[in-house]
Amino acid sequence: MSDNSILLDHGSGGLASQDLISSLFLKYLDNPILRSLEDSAILENQPGRLAFTTDSYVVDPLFFPGGDIGKLAVHGTINDLAMRGANPLCLSLGLILEEGMDLDELEKIVISIGQASTESGVPIVTGDTKVVPKGKGDKIFINTSGIGFVPDHISISSKNGVAGDAVILSGSMGDHGITIMTRRAGISMDGNLKSDTMSLHKMIARLLAEFPDDIHTLRDPTRGGVATSLNEIAASSKLSIMMDEESLPIRPEVRAACEILGLEALFLANEGKCLAIVAGNKADAILELMRSTPEGKEAVIIGKMVQGKAGRVLINTPVGGSRVVTPLQGEPLPRIC
Amino acid sequence: MSDNSILLDHGSGGLASQDLISSLFLKYLDNPILRSLEDSAILENQPGRLAFTTDSYVVDPLFFPGGDIGKLAVHGTINDLAMRGANPLCLSLGLILEEGMDLDELEKIVISIGQASTESGVPIVTGDTKVVPKGKGDKIFINTSGIGFVPDHISISSKNGVAGDAVILSGSMGDHGITIMTRRAGISMDGNLKSDTMSLHKMIARLLAEFPDDIHTLRDPTRGGVATSLNEIAASSKLSIMMDEESLPIRPEVRAACEILGLEALFLANEGKCLAIVAGNKADAILELMRSTPEGKEAVIIGKMVQGKAGRVLINTPVGGSRVVTPLQGEPLPRIC
Repeated sequence: MSDNSILLDHGSGGLASQDLISSLFLKYLDNPILRSLEDSAILENQPGRLAFTTDSYVVDPLFFPGGDIGKLAVHGTINDLAMRGANPLCLSLGLILEEGMDLDELEKIVISIGQASTESGVPIVTGDTKVVPKGKGDKIFINTSGIGFVPDHISISSKNGVAGDAVILSGSMGDHGITIMTRRAGISMDGNLKSDTMSLHKMIARLLAEFPDDIHTLRDPTRGGVATSLNEIAASSKLSIMMDEESLPIRPEVRAACEILGLEALFLANEGKCLAIVAGNKADAILELMRSTPEGKEAVIIGKMVQGKAGRVLINTPVGGSRVVTPLQGEPLPRIC
Repeated sequence: MSDNSILLDHGSGGLASQDLISSLFLKYLDNPILRSLEDSAILENQPGRLAFTTDSYVVDPLFFPGGDIGKLAVHGTINDLAMRGANPLCLSLGLILEEGMDLDELEKIVISIGQASTESGVPIVTGDTKVVPKGKGDKIFINTSGIGFVPDHISISSKNGVAGDAVILSGSMGDHGITIMTRRAGISMDGNLKSDTMSLHKMIARLLAEFPDDIHTLRDPTRGGVATSLNEIAASSKLSIMMDEESLPIRPEVRAACEILGLEALFLANEGKCLAIVAGNKADAILELMRSTPEGKEAVIIGKMVQGKAGRVLINTPVGGSRVVTPLQGEPLPRIC
């Protein structure tokens, strides 16, 4: 084992663990709360209800065009908070490292976590690192949990869709999923496939400031993609959703890669997009506001909520018919995030 | 792969993931907040400052005398909140499963998590499950993060020790660590070695209710053991600690196993014990109260904080000398928790 790799001792809780904390975590993630290194972080309370979420990240490969596992872990958990209308306050960071992991690679990931956290304005305030023996993990798994506060007048839930609501997608579909799949398949594509990983809370805050009562549901279509998220929303809201296939925003290079790999973009993970179910009579104004933000500049209305069988998602095809879109099943797309 | 094992599809975010959620997680961990299955849990805010902590659990073996990885994950995170004087409110649960893991084994762990959560009165309110391919994990890794609230008049920190404070240990030392080490070494011991895993927040709440100003520091000596925790407290409080070797509570069977394995109980992990640094003039009363609780019935005073080199921990030996006790170093004891 070289000097420059993770040792079991780094997870022992003793001096080697402390070295890792001071030489890496405090160096790149520093803030007064994290620096206290106590059993729990203590933060001032905020007004509003509490939002709490957790996600583990096991993406393979660790680095990919547009991002890496560290950025994904920061953005993903921030987005899960934003999807309930919460203002993200802070994140925790739990690492499970494999013995032998290259310390330079770990440093790159920690730097990336620090950048994503700083850019998003959401600090890492508490953390934990464990090490498992070589062959019992895969370099690094990351858990980020997050806390946010929901203003008292905001209520966002997948139950809140009503008939007549418009379904907005904040940008193109499938970019993250297809980037990971082509990298893993070793396929080199022309064009510029890259992950869309990005935090969405600033865009959501603007939408909620202007349209506090008209945003009914928000959901980031990660694993399982837009199709699975819409099925869940339709089921929770006890309505059907009618989508228009021609409106679906898919980049040409994503479409081409999907054809090669036999995948459907509707089921591919996105890491910087959201679905917004919004009041039909405000949909154009909300779309316009979304398009004025960097995160939502390619937003489109892709369908609407309609009376009908609870949980059914239909898509109008260009030839005039319609078909049922089910949730993802039987297609394991492992380690996408 | 049998029907009764974890498949990659269970981590896809689609129908198989939903099956796992309804047949296992909602069955054993059910509560109204978890049941909403949204991107974040929403909870009513509480008075006080916010405490936030995270821990990943990778213990090997998964089941051991006195507990299992599930109980450990619930108790450990609750205890990290309690060690700052926080009343634990809720936990998150992040699972990383290995393809091929036996579903019955997973069910046993989820049942155990549910029991520990119910007994402790701290619900699991949000969760996430990922699956990694066979050979890229080790059956199950668990992350629990937790939120609690610290009453405004309470201030517990490893910085708060003052000279003259007594050091109380809430019970015997090394039980968890030695239980794991002997199981892994395949050593069968006479006697009754078992993990001490247990949540401590109810005992801490009683102590803080009666002695809100006299409990200065609390720390659960997990990885690195009592020796490492005391070194950290001494460094943070900029004082020395003098321990009395004869006072250290070690069960005879733990002592015997330590001799066989060449380990020192001072460095072994505990999962149901705390160190309390308390005002010297209240130490006897606090000890008495601690001993009146089920969690602290074997509590003892093991030393005191003294003026001296910051961060130095000394131990008086039975033959009249003293030696320096350093933090754990160079002894990897992996996957203890």
